[in-house]
Amino acid sequence: MRELETCFSPALYEPESHSGSIVVIIDILRATSAICTAFENGAASIIPVGTIPQAKEYKRMGYLVAAERDGFVLDFADFGNSPFNFTREKVEGKTIAYSTTNGTGIIKMAVSASEIIIGSFLNISAVVKWLSERDKNVVLFCAGWKNRFNLEDTICAGAISERLMAGSQYSTIDDSTIAALDLWSVAKTDVRGYVEKAAQRSRLRNKKLDDCIDFCLQEDFTATVPVIMDGILVKG
Amino acid sequence: MRELETCFSPALYEPESHSGSIVVIIDILRATSAICTAFENGAASIIPVGTIPQAKEYKRMGYLVAAERDGFVLDFADFGNSPFNFTREKVEGKTIAYSTTNGTGIIKMAVSASEIIIGSFLNISAVVKWLSERDKNVVLFCAGWKNRFNLEDTICAGAISERLMAGSQYSTIDDSTIAALDLWSVAKTDVRGYVEKAAQRSRLRNKKLDDCIDFCLQEDFTATVPVIMDGILVKG
Repeated sequence: MRELETCFSPALYEPESHSGSIVVIIDILRATSAICTAFENGAASIIPVGTIPQAKEYKRMGYLVAAERDGFVLDFADFGNSPFNFTREKVEGKTIAYSTTNGTGIIKMAVSASEIIIGSFLNISAVVKWLSERDKNVVLFCAGWKNRFNLEDTICAGAISERLMAGSQYSTIDDSTIAALDLWSVAKTDVRGYVEKAAQRSRLRNKKLDDCIDFCLQEDFTATVPVIMDGILVKG
Repeated sequence: MRELETCFSPALYEPESHSGSIVVIIDILRATSAICTAFENGAASIIPVGTIPQAKEYKRMGYLVAAERDGFVLDFADFGNSPFNFTREKVEGKTIAYSTTNGTGIIKMAVSASEIIIGSFLNISAVVKWLSERDKNVVLFCAGWKNRFNLEDTICAGAISERLMAGSQYSTIDDSTIAALDLWSVAKTDVRGYVEKAAQRSRLRNKKLDDCIDFCLQEDFTATVPVIMDGILVKG
């Protein structure tokens, strides 16, 4: 039986506990939704970049650069992390260097995992299928917000968990996964309404960056599962 | 309006954010339930002790000592942290040095708070009344288990939050508090059944330490609110 665990925040991640597991990174508002959108629109690969100086260096080398902090596009970057930025016109066939507030850092934290993939509502069925086909324990790693728990990533983890637990391949003894499942059970009849309660919703609204929320909550916009290969995100 | 926040684990606690707040420590299976029971049964005060050598030193000085690690009573101690240990015969009028796996450490983490009190289902109405009478922001600090999120402390935080939010004194923009409220809404019709799902339930059962769970889930066994004064727990 495969074990299913959920991590609510980078501050709770235990790399040594998860070295043999598949880690699913979840940061639905907006990094992992944007990454899924970029691959659906033909991006060749995405380089996760930690710091702003590194992102600038990629820009100098001629890469497309996505870089934001606290939701705002950095001045030297080609785009931020709204999924609407990653249009086919802009990204098809391209490699993008991508640095975000939460998402990039946790990809780097999870390097000791067996495999790392990108999850969101946009590719939820593909993620579940991809995991089912591999005989590994799974960690759903929510990016949270500045090391804090957040609701939107947690309900996405709950939605993935519900599907994984519906079969007989996975079990859990992890309180975080049980909580994610229960919160998803509260949220799922009105996901949009539920996300209205989340702090990130207010943050994005205050910055007028909330136009993509309906888009980010839709299931199965893409059948792509972005995976990390040699430190780079590619189509799995 | 007073702000209400919830912290799911010591790993998520931000001392600098909470220096003006009242912190409610919640570790219901079993430390904070045991502390409430001790005061109800007449204990004079409880000294939170961090390390095992310190606990041994208190024993040498003639104090009653409660000390456990992972649920087991340490050999030199008078008792562990089952609330059933803290009988009137043993504790009335006494000062107890108390060291536990999770609980003591987080009391020490919260020293920068305005005030620190001890919460559990056993004193829930008293805690809510005590908080209502003070015009301060509140942080519900769940001990969790070895830095991880746990269900039982979270639903207790949710139960306290529900009562605080029912009035017009408190508001929250904190996703953790919203999650605790929603998990409590799932749990409250059958709290005992809900705690069956929690990992700590299995841990205690495996060690045959689960005889006190029904006791720990009862509301208002005591009207006492233990508070920290000069580093020592006393009756508030």
